[in-house]
Amino acid sequence: MDWKTIDACRRCETLPQRVEVRGWVRTRRDSKGGFSFIEVNDGTCLGNLQVVAPGELDNYASEVQKLTAGCSVVVQGELVESPAKGQSTELHAQSVRVIGWCDGETYPLQKKRHSFEKLREWSHLRARTNTLGAVMRVRNRLSQSIHRFFDDAGFYYLHTPIVTASDCEGAGEMFRVTTLDLEKLAGSNRPFDPSQDFFGKPTHLTVSGQLEGETYASALSKIYTFGPTFRAENSNTSRHLAEFWMVEPEAAFFDLRDNMKLAESFLKHIFSDVLEHCAEDMEFFDQRIEKGKIDQVKSVIEKPFEHMTYTEAVDRLTSSKESFEYPVKWGIDLQAEHEKYLTQLVDGPLILTDYPSTIKPFYMRVSDDEKTVAAMDVLVPGVGEIIGGSQREERLDVLLRRMNEAGLDEKEYWWYIDLRRFGSVPHAGFGLGLERAVQYATGMTNIRDVIPFPRTPGNAEF
Amino acid sequence: MDWKTIDACRRCETLPQRVEVRGWVRTRRDSKGGFSFIEVNDGTCLGNLQVVAPGELDNYASEVQKLTAGCSVVVQGELVESPAKGQSTELHAQSVRVIGWCDGETYPLQKKRHSFEKLREWSHLRARTNTLGAVMRVRNRLSQSIHRFFDDAGFYYLHTPIVTASDCEGAGEMFRVTTLDLEKLAGSNRPFDPSQDFFGKPTHLTVSGQLEGETYASALSKIYTFGPTFRAENSNTSRHLAEFWMVEPEAAFFDLRDNMKLAESFLKHIFSDVLEHCAEDMEFFDQRIEKGKIDQVKSVIEKPFEHMTYTEAVDRLTSSKESFEYPVKWGIDLQAEHEKYLTQLVDGPLILTDYPSTIKPFYMRVSDDEKTVAAMDVLVPGVGEIIGGSQREERLDVLLRRMNEAGLDEKEYWWYIDLRRFGSVPHAGFGLGLERAVQYATGMTNIRDVIPFPRTPGNAEF
Repeated sequence: MDWKTIDACRRCETLPQRVEVRGWVRTRRDSKGGFSFIEVNDGTCLGNLQVVAPGELDNYASEVQKLTAGCSVVVQGELVESPAKGQSTELHAQSVRVIGWCDGETYPLQKKRHSFEKLREWSHLRARTNTLGAVMRVRNRLSQSIHRFFDDAGFYYLHTPIVTASDCEGAGEMFRVTTLDLEKLAGSNRPFDPSQDFFGKPTHLTVSGQLEGETYASALSKIYTFGPTFRAENSNTSRHLAEFWMVEPEAAFFDLRDNMKLAESFLKHIFSDVLEHCAEDMEFFDQRIEKGKIDQVKSVIEKPFEHMTYTEAVDRLTSSKESFEYPVKWGIDLQAEHEKYLTQLVDGPLILTDYPSTIKPFYMRVSDDEKTVAAMDVLVPGVGEIIGGSQREERLDVLLRRMNEAGLDEKEYWWYIDLRRFGSVPHAGFGLGLERAVQYATGMTNIRDVIPFPRTPGNAEF
Repeated sequence: MDWKTIDACRRCETLPQRVEVRGWVRTRRDSKGGFSFIEVNDGTCLGNLQVVAPGELDNYASEVQKLTAGCSVVVQGELVESPAKGQSTELHAQSVRVIGWCDGETYPLQKKRHSFEKLREWSHLRARTNTLGAVMRVRNRLSQSIHRFFDDAGFYYLHTPIVTASDCEGAGEMFRVTTLDLEKLAGSNRPFDPSQDFFGKPTHLTVSGQLEGETYASALSKIYTFGPTFRAENSNTSRHLAEFWMVEPEAAFFDLRDNMKLAESFLKHIFSDVLEHCAEDMEFFDQRIEKGKIDQVKSVIEKPFEHMTYTEAVDRLTSSKESFEYPVKWGIDLQAEHEKYLTQLVDGPLILTDYPSTIKPFYMRVSDDEKTVAAMDVLVPGVGEIIGGSQREERLDVLLRRMNEAGLDEKEYWWYIDLRRFGSVPHAGFGLGLERAVQYATGMTNIRDVIPFPRTPGNAEF
């Protein structure tokens, strides 16, 4: 007999059809009529496929009636229109083969609802739950969409190094990478010699691929990175990860205006893709995680982004009647409460530009007023900053002055400085934290629940 | 006036056309007729765009005639059919704006040819050369193609952790990740306490995302990873990198046959894409780096992959009249010379299967003969092994036995073992090193020349 193997999500084909479906049991319910309903999920979509298993199956009493949540099965049968409400098809089983049993006593994912916190202890299993499965499908769709957007726009995907001897931010808490035997080192009581290490010098995990990205933008014109970045910040909050994924486009001959346009069309593109391709999952987030989520995401897609300078923003904030926890004056870093006020004020996404140079890194381009730099932050309603970027300083003398002010060693950055010696061009870029984007799309409040295996202080299981 | 900004590679449009091109000067040649030819490249393609700059330009004597390799320019003019041989179009400049000068005395990339070894010292600039630019475009195309292949095939892109407390291979030399102050540690003369470290235990950089990938395949059915992996091997050869990018698909309900089919269609897909989308670059590699490269890549696309068991391969090798440096008998690891002989024997790509369990890792599925495991290596002419994979051991008792034999601690792998307790399924996957694939496509012999910033013992500049 000929069985066509299909994913559980492919339920809209011509019916009836003889198919085979493979997946994991979510629930089993025995009917008084002498048959069972088995909800099967294979991770390809949120909804379970309902299998109707008749009592006539050879293994009905011996196996089917013993199925519990988590068991893996292969079901062959006829996919038909469902008479039941809320599902379009069901599978009338002609055979139910049990592939792997699952002990109901010890399986962590019982029918009862677990807190997200609890689920984090079972990161190897939690994608089998509705919410985490949906999050990971959205994360995948955003990632795919990011690649397609930049590929279609002529940006080359660039793999910047993970282990690095440089430090993009000039500060930042970094993880050390070493092959030295720490145990031996501790007992040695000899002066420490970093030249004995694998790379012959101290190396760390990258905090950003931007500086290396700039070098390739100065050769291939348009590049983007999409890879893991690291912060050794000892912050045990719902907003921090020690390891997360960043997207960083960089384009030669781009100024701040070009950069703003790119960021806007980029965000519109990736969120449209998610709404289109993850409709069922997004419906779930809208109903179960954050009411109004879909409308909020739509507003980013549909509304033109407003533009406002930092200076104007400060004026608006200081002239408002709002009482802020952090008082506002020109020169401060804007806080979440300020960003929230501003996005509410314009009722949509907002790009703030031209920040004081004193609160921004050395590589941002100094403007003619000498007080501000060509920086931009993209704020979206509900989350605040989702993208940060800038036009980069392409003038050798200004860059060297800024590095000097920041206390950076020119020798360490000789290759970065070289770009300003040899055919320097105006260029610009930005960074998007993938996890922030997934949080924005899904409404998940804890960043640990939007990455498969979160890394935080004290946590590197798996 | 309205100038349409175009990439240098877009040269096949309706002509003549008024355009603006932005890029870097490769060469300048002054004609006796009182005008100059300027070759401009912007990294979007191999070929330079020839700019004809007339002597009438305002800045002809003051700037145009001073242009040297590496200067950045913005040229506006009319793109017309070229009368010259070997190029389809040329740009008749109406203005040549110099954006950034480039000191001919100190600029490393002079007209003369540099060795690839020398170019590695200028990793921040080498993508401005013909060969490295072409390599990076091919690398980009392969990467994009990898994502599209798996996305279209219903595999979810999964970000497995980079910092990990587990070790996929059970051995392997790994980089330690720490926030401990090594200098202080060396001077402390106190017993070393790893619980004081950031993650509360010893952590390393991942050598493979496979084990974590298996957990997600057991929830979402089909996943793939594409990320950096690390080996702290002290090998200073043309074949080793300390940091490289791996692609690892994993699929539930897949057996070895399914895995072999997936690997074959995957390789055919990504190399077809490169031939189609990087035609000019591939022509270059075929002519300048390795003669016959295009035909070799085509053979992978066009020929069905042969299948052979390890046992049969050993028979063929021992019954051949070839004299091998490493003698062949059942149980040995096949060497490059053996793999080469076999691909020549079948005159095309070859999948070897069913290796002795003694030379393969604990997670590969033990076959009924109890001597072999359901492993596969894909060999391609010219390079040898390009993909390694297997069906995984899904039986709890067999897995535990194999872990025990390998001397692994069950406690460390509790989550991996859990998969065999809770709805275990047959599953399979493989790994492709991106750099091996780029080398295969381009013919580049040193792996350090196919990754933007190579990491090797003693080298982590940039």
